[in-house]
Amino acid sequence: MILHTIAEVREQIKNWKKEGLTIGLVPTMGALHAGHKSLIEKSVEQCDRTVVSVFVNPIQFCPGEDLDKYPRTLDADNKLCEQVGADIVFAPSPNEMYGEGHIHSNDFLTYVIPPYFYVNKLCGKSRVGHFDGVCTVVNKLFNIVRPDFAFFGQKDAQQLIIIRKMVRDLNIPVEIIPCPIVREPSGLALSSRNKYLTDGAKEDALALSKILFNIKACYDKGITDIESLKDTAFSFLNEHHNLEYLEFLDADTLDEKTVADANTRVFIAVKIGDVRLIDNIML
Amino acid sequence: MILHTIAEVREQIKNWKKEGLTIGLVPTMGALHAGHKSLIEKSVEQCDRTVVSVFVNPIQFCPGEDLDKYPRTLDADNKLCEQVGADIVFAPSPNEMYGEGHIHSNDFLTYVIPPYFYVNKLCGKSRVGHFDGVCTVVNKLFNIVRPDFAFFGQKDAQQLIIIRKMVRDLNIPVEIIPCPIVREPSGLALSSRNKYLTDGAKEDALALSKILFNIKACYDKGITDIESLKDTAFSFLNEHHNLEYLEFLDADTLDEKTVADANTRVFIAVKIGDVRLIDNIML
Repeated sequence: MILHTIAEVREQIKNWKKEGLTIGLVPTMGALHAGHKSLIEKSVEQCDRTVVSVFVNPIQFCPGEDLDKYPRTLDADNKLCEQVGADIVFAPSPNEMYGEGHIHSNDFLTYVIPPYFYVNKLCGKSRVGHFDGVCTVVNKLFNIVRPDFAFFGQKDAQQLIIIRKMVRDLNIPVEIIPCPIVREPSGLALSSRNKYLTDGAKEDALALSKILFNIKACYDKGITDIESLKDTAFSFLNEHHNLEYLEFLDADTLDEKTVADANTRVFIAVKIGDVRLIDNIML
Repeated sequence: MILHTIAEVREQIKNWKKEGLTIGLVPTMGALHAGHKSLIEKSVEQCDRTVVSVFVNPIQFCPGEDLDKYPRTLDADNKLCEQVGADIVFAPSPNEMYGEGHIHSNDFLTYVIPPYFYVNKLCGKSRVGHFDGVCTVVNKLFNIVRPDFAFFGQKDAQQLIIIRKMVRDLNIPVEIIPCPIVREPSGLALSSRNKYLTDGAKEDALALSKILFNIKACYDKGITDIESLKDTAFSFLNEHHNLEYLEFLDADTLDEKTVADANTRVFIAVKIGDVRLIDNIML
């Protein structure tokens, strides 16, 4: 069942709550792939009812980013959700979510702002305001759907950590369920932005997972010096790769690590032409 | 019943929700007076169960403000709540609400930030960050108590307007009930900060309500020119009064009015010695 208004969703949720059913939410921007599918499957398995939101959230795109050309495939998304057993696809318009006008302006919109320490690194450094938009829309979705569980992929690991922090800080009554990264057989992490890649660029994109797998292999062999582990990356990079960051951070607090250990997550972002790709791995 | 932990409150609320009972929340900083009492009475009348929170919220005090000396009278507050029929007094410690350390730092705490247009005027101008702290703690209380209705006094009119805006912007499933200002027979609006006033200062404090009542009387006689209405104020002020603002704004949007009309709210703030008092009236 596809719903476009907040009022319709609230009505359905109210009835389910009355029956005492548990509710899972999978927030997405659509262009669903096997990674999203694994989140929806997990929710369907764990919860009585599952809501998938499909909303390309304008306020999490920075000026110059790909808001207009971000892939929109609602019919296919809806079909996938039905096949996997989701009960509601919630696909609101920007107006339904933010009202007329004033979109993008913190002059006229209440924002949920994650802590500076969590934001001023990794993707937050180049995507100024991005996580403000993410936290605000996720907060809205939580208030509309009032889920017991919400499912997020570990592909966007910084996002996941920031959302868990928001849930703790604001006492939001929802349990966040992290789900593993889904990869192509080549190792490439699934992403809606992979659609932008030409065949040649897709070949270049394999560098991200190769670098991470190689770092993990070196760590497993006993190397814990971070500079040495970083150095192993460069043999995988060529002139098509624009390395934005390669960082070793605490998987819960995003504190910088001085030595690699079992609670270290390695984060990488690379630009290949116009396409910005991210990936990460736990050591 | 007085509860000090979030977990205890959640447990009780869960049981009430299961029984299908409606819940009212009256958020306060304690030092309860007849103004708060009227809010609690309204909630008790309207809701099956009433929760009064008593929490002097550190993050809504600015540096140099009266956080340490703010009146704390929990025993008396609890007695009043019981008499009026509240079911829970929720009195958490700062640690229970914000965890150890990091209080006051947006480096490490997720904040709910109201729109700049609503904040950059009236009390927000001199109390920088105040409404960020208010919105953050009210958001937390809403997530902990999950009330159907929440009751706020019109004495803090800017706060009330900002909270209604937050509820709309973030789709918070709660209905905000505004309640009229309660005044002493002299006209003085009740406030926990009136306790700071010496007898002489209390006499001077009457100027606020006198100015507002006089403006309203002039408006009722047909004067709508704002400068003329403002001019009537000065005969009530003496050398003890430090007028911070006297403004005519739209009661919903806080837009500045060019001509007084029926949706105009008049806001006043005056410092008398160290004590800052506010009041307001609808035309």
